[in-house]
Amino acid sequence: MQGYVEKIKELTLEEKAGLCSGLDFWHLKGIERLGIPSVMVTDGPHGLRKQAEGADHLGLHNSVPSTCFPSAAGLASSWDKELIYRVGEALGDEAQAEEVAVLLGPGANIKRSPLCGRNFEYFSEDPYLSSAMATNHIKGVQSKGIGTSLKHFAANNQEHRRMSVDAVVDERTLREIYLASFEEAVKKAQPWTVMCAYNKVNGDYASENHRLLTEILRDEWGFEGFVVSDWGAVNERVAGLKAGLELEMPASNGINDKKLVDAVKAGELKEETLDLAVERILNIIDKAITERKENATYDKEKHHQFAREVAAESMVLLKNEGNLLPLQQEAKLAVIGSFATKPRIQGGGSSHINPTKVDSVLEELKAYAGNTAYAEGYNLENDAIDHDKITEAKEIAKSAEIAVIFTGLPDRYESEGYDRDHLQIPENHRLLIEAVTEVQPNTVIVLSNGAPIEMPWLNRTKAVVEGYLGGQAFGGAIADVLFGKVNPSGRLAETFPKKVSDNPSHLNFPGEGDIVEYKEGIFVGYRYYDTKQIEPLFPFGYGLSYTTFDYSNLQVAERTITDQEELEVSVTVKNTGKVAGKEVVQLYVKDVISNVNRPEKELKSFTKVALEPGQEENVTFTLDKRSFAYYNVDLADWYVESGEFVIMIGKSSQEIVLEETVTVESTVELPVTVHRNTLMGDLMKNDKYKEEAKALLANSPLASMGAEEEQAGSEMMEAMMQNMPLRAMVTFSGGAFTDEMLEDLIKKLNQL
Amino acid sequence: MQGYVEKIKELTLEEKAGLCSGLDFWHLKGIERLGIPSVMVTDGPHGLRKQAEGADHLGLHNSVPSTCFPSAAGLASSWDKELIYRVGEALGDEAQAEEVAVLLGPGANIKRSPLCGRNFEYFSEDPYLSSAMATNHIKGVQSKGIGTSLKHFAANNQEHRRMSVDAVVDERTLREIYLASFEEAVKKAQPWTVMCAYNKVNGDYASENHRLLTEILRDEWGFEGFVVSDWGAVNERVAGLKAGLELEMPASNGINDKKLVDAVKAGELKEETLDLAVERILNIIDKAITERKENATYDKEKHHQFAREVAAESMVLLKNEGNLLPLQQEAKLAVIGSFATKPRIQGGGSSHINPTKVDSVLEELKAYAGNTAYAEGYNLENDAIDHDKITEAKEIAKSAEIAVIFTGLPDRYESEGYDRDHLQIPENHRLLIEAVTEVQPNTVIVLSNGAPIEMPWLNRTKAVVEGYLGGQAFGGAIADVLFGKVNPSGRLAETFPKKVSDNPSHLNFPGEGDIVEYKEGIFVGYRYYDTKQIEPLFPFGYGLSYTTFDYSNLQVAERTITDQEELEVSVTVKNTGKVAGKEVVQLYVKDVISNVNRPEKELKSFTKVALEPGQEENVTFTLDKRSFAYYNVDLADWYVESGEFVIMIGKSSQEIVLEETVTVESTVELPVTVHRNTLMGDLMKNDKYKEEAKALLANSPLASMGAEEEQAGSEMMEAMMQNMPLRAMVTFSGGAFTDEMLEDLIKKLNQL
Repeated sequence: MQGYVEKIKELTLEEKAGLCSGLDFWHLKGIERLGIPSVMVTDGPHGLRKQAEGADHLGLHNSVPSTCFPSAAGLASSWDKELIYRVGEALGDEAQAEEVAVLLGPGANIKRSPLCGRNFEYFSEDPYLSSAMATNHIKGVQSKGIGTSLKHFAANNQEHRRMSVDAVVDERTLREIYLASFEEAVKKAQPWTVMCAYNKVNGDYASENHRLLTEILRDEWGFEGFVVSDWGAVNERVAGLKAGLELEMPASNGINDKKLVDAVKAGELKEETLDLAVERILNIIDKAITERKENATYDKEKHHQFAREVAAESMVLLKNEGNLLPLQQEAKLAVIGSFATKPRIQGGGSSHINPTKVDSVLEELKAYAGNTAYAEGYNLENDAIDHDKITEAKEIAKSAEIAVIFTGLPDRYESEGYDRDHLQIPENHRLLIEAVTEVQPNTVIVLSNGAPIEMPWLNRTKAVVEGYLGGQAFGGAIADVLFGKVNPSGRLAETFPKKVSDNPSHLNFPGEGDIVEYKEGIFVGYRYYDTKQIEPLFPFGYGLSYTTFDYSNLQVAERTITDQEELEVSVTVKNTGKVAGKEVVQLYVKDVISNVNRPEKELKSFTKVALEPGQEENVTFTLDKRSFAYYNVDLADWYVESGEFVIMIGKSSQEIVLEETVTVESTVELPVTVHRNTLMGDLMKNDKYKEEAKALLANSPLASMGAEEEQAGSEMMEAMMQNMPLRAMVTFSGGAFTDEMLEDLIKKLNQL
Repeated sequence: MQGYVEKIKELTLEEKAGLCSGLDFWHLKGIERLGIPSVMVTDGPHGLRKQAEGADHLGLHNSVPSTCFPSAAGLASSWDKELIYRVGEALGDEAQAEEVAVLLGPGANIKRSPLCGRNFEYFSEDPYLSSAMATNHIKGVQSKGIGTSLKHFAANNQEHRRMSVDAVVDERTLREIYLASFEEAVKKAQPWTVMCAYNKVNGDYASENHRLLTEILRDEWGFEGFVVSDWGAVNERVAGLKAGLELEMPASNGINDKKLVDAVKAGELKEETLDLAVERILNIIDKAITERKENATYDKEKHHQFAREVAAESMVLLKNEGNLLPLQQEAKLAVIGSFATKPRIQGGGSSHINPTKVDSVLEELKAYAGNTAYAEGYNLENDAIDHDKITEAKEIAKSAEIAVIFTGLPDRYESEGYDRDHLQIPENHRLLIEAVTEVQPNTVIVLSNGAPIEMPWLNRTKAVVEGYLGGQAFGGAIADVLFGKVNPSGRLAETFPKKVSDNPSHLNFPGEGDIVEYKEGIFVGYRYYDTKQIEPLFPFGYGLSYTTFDYSNLQVAERTITDQEELEVSVTVKNTGKVAGKEVVQLYVKDVISNVNRPEKELKSFTKVALEPGQEENVTFTLDKRSFAYYNVDLADWYVESGEFVIMIGKSSQEIVLEETVTVESTVELPVTVHRNTLMGDLMKNDKYKEEAKALLANSPLASMGAEEEQAGSEMMEAMMQNMPLRAMVTFSGGAFTDEMLEDLIKKLNQL
């Protein structure tokens, strides 16, 4: 350690305030006279975007070359924690080589809507999966002495009006979905920094949200690093610092530094608050310098090969009718679509990096295939329909045995900065698919896109591979998958809906003016499709393989546990096909009966296993309180409602292959206060009050009223009784039961 | 007039307090010494439920016989304003004959969920239709000198926990959907009384909700009568009186009268408030006595015949494959189902009346048919499956030419007091339908139910008639419809979903504990199915006829109007079939582009026309501001966003046959205040600021930043600019643009 923190006492007020904002776009300030250096941060969850000296501010396209890995949407589809850890390690190595202290990622925002322009940078619609991916990304990067910045905290789920919109999210939804996606990553991986979001959350800018930045992030989750603003997210600097935003980026040009100084002088900001912020920042600078590896380098070619492995592991085989895939090397191929020569390997915006090299898909395919023809098929630059290109494609498809169309979303269709307003691919792509499939029944579709698309042409094709934004080695990777060198093992980390109106946020996205209300609540992604029984195009967790897997022997260690105990679950998975492959074993939990609305099922664990043909493995999971709990807003804590839970093992969220039921007993008693509007039915259902309430009711005017009404439907009378508040005994007693008697009764019940 | 109000000054404080609660279950108090009589109120929107002397409190099944008309769900399906007015008149006549002062209805609650147990008592999922029905019901009853009680005000949309649940509804939704269903009825029909609901609305009991009972109902809508509590709805009496609840029912046994007296004495309640309440109550008593017709009688048989007409007009022909209907009199019929001898003519609960007589469906069919066999088919009392009954039904069906199955929901399946939790008919009904349709392809299903059901058997049948709860003359009416004496002209006043999970409130019904959040907002009924593109089983407004209608010549009087002008719309409808029939012409309006979420279309007018074969009629509608407006919460008023609107003429909400586009210009300017977080894009879009903003931007640091980034996607940069708040000019100016300059700029813009 360098002992920078010790130097706080030597800093002037102005220097301390100064340390709380950047030197420029990409550097923190240093204090030369005290030997505190200026360190650099760079964008890029899936690769380093280090601005070359003298380039523009954002440097979106002029950064120093670095390896472009698949973006987060693809990485998450691998469902492979170890793989993403290794990606983190590689990023860390590149950051060391470039003398970058902190990599600005990963992004753990939930995919609330498939339309969000930045979804390609995020992992999943599910917080458990998202948080697991983020955890391993962070651990990987930080294992190399490089910091991360877990972003964008929180509820930054759209680009539309992102700097002014207020995300209105109820507490339970925030906890179970949007914060949960960050929570485990903070607790388990301790990112050096967390980046606050642009938007407001429930009325306050994320950049000045004390509840988020201090109460939850630090006090509850134990975050130890510093919070940095998203670039330009600071609204009122003093309010931000008070709320827990330590570092403003980029430079405030002295303006906000002065505001901090003035606030301290005016007594509006305690100097200790400023000191604490500086201490946190210096701590991380210290760490960065301490862990810096001088003269570090990395092997560009090895990283490229690793990028190829990662891309292949991330691909999802969506359809494979009649086992059209894998392709035979001798097959006569028609390769169609400009993406085959100019692949879309990454998304637009701050994560856009300058790759060390880019595979040509066409060349990589040629390396496998004996006989290949190529046609552009469509304009890459715009949506204009080029009938000549379509005709050309049709011709080569006709004379081939198999056509492979490379399609998806062009750059202009999705990017940081704006959201889509539909889920369609360009019309010139769609018409191409229709034309080619008219003449060639054996057509494979390879998709490059950062988020779900509609597939009205799905029935016309035999095979579909979702390649997401596959990074610089996408070309090699897709060749490996198409020709079966790699057996695809990706699973969707998000639901593909049949149409845009099916998605849960449809009625409330992107909001009205500067308010977006998350009215779908906890019903995000498959939680919604399950509960609403809306059939998706492809469900969460879905993906095919070139082999088959059988599941058997689901075991739960205990039939009954308390919410303080862990539960071991095991299941045997066997590769029953002819080639080696990997299976993602998914564990979902369902609360059978609940007093609150709960999803049909929720992902609570998963693992990925590699199996040779005929090989089997016993896979084990450990569940704990959180696996069964919902966030109880009154308790302000996670709470398990006693009762039965179904443990489901699934090949996807919709294909549950085995299940077992267990009972979990809560060790927490929810507080109940009886009052004049407490319902009879609630007392009857509560063990504590049941007997007393029955006796009371038997002697009450309501009982006689019930008897009188025997002719009426007994269901109705029963229901009416259940739904009567205690005060009704006064109303319906004809004066026999007084208000005073009611008060006495309530007192008595509350003393039980 | 009797001058009762003048006597207020002669009343003691105790007498005044006493007048604010009932004498017993069904009577208001009188003041004998002053000659103020006690008047009676009775339940029953579709018939009088007058308790016989000495019967039980609720008197659910022992009331004085009266004509049972179809319940509201059926009445609304007639879409016939004149018809429901006549029903009101008939009810008024019966009330006069029974010396009842006020009839406790109609119910104008919106059908938020098809599961609500009391839906049969309500009109529609659409506020325009519901309010139109309520208006005419009230006008009809009150034309006879009998008061009504428009209920249950407001947001009483479920039975589950109805006395304690808090309906949390955002202001716009409340205004556009739940209150709108009452609004026109109050304004146009002035019900003598309004009945407040049991539940809470946004935190306050409806019975003590000042905003609802005083600010909206009286101050905004001009309600002149008094508010009565639903029976037992009073929570805190003093708070209730202050909020605008004049009359508590039933008797408070002196308890709450004393509380009022004490409150006045303690200075907690102004005596003028109490006086005003008493004045309002006395006014209505005065009216009732003044309009009382001594020795009034009514002709029971004529009312029965009228009930038959009403029931026939209310039926909805849902399916009629190959024109199986109408039946030929010589056809050999198998009449199946216990409902044919014991029809379900009304719903359970407070609206349940003692009919003067009840038609036997079977006997009425026999009056038409030459050759009829009958089988029970199922147990009426429970869900037990009786295979013998099914076998018997199958046999008679087999040897008949046509089978008619009478099925639907038994009493125990729906009632006041509890909600359904599924949309299925009993299993023993369903199995019967399957068995009969196996042997008899010509099967007609006649439904008796108060609210939608799922129809998994729909494809097995050729014809389906929705009879709702058709009242005491249902038997004659269904015979008239089945044999074509009456051509069915009912249209659904609610969507029939394919499955329960399709319905808009599915994720939030009936709420959690004592909170139900209306998170679907304005997207209720067809507004939801349209926008979410969920195909319903049968859409809102749907219904077939034995004839056909053609639409032509849609004319709008103006292409452009202001929101202060009315718009005349006309269309020609022609009966192109061979029999006389009635068509419901439905007018929907769609806002083409809006800054707020609006439904795909909304019903804004309708009319019903009777046409002989070959006859045509030019139908006209008048639209006004409200036809185009949404409720703007900031303005706290209805607001029309300038722009294009589509006028649609539909045979149902999903079958639009003609449309025209008009432009409506708003005369109201929405106030805009520019602040540091105002977005660039918003200024650019606003005519007032556009030029100024462009000039500013051209000279701002953002412009140069934009230029630098030319390589980046232009869509992205464009979007980023649009979404930048003004404060970002300081952040990204590198110090050139200061906070002070920003403040000056904002001041300048606000002075434009």
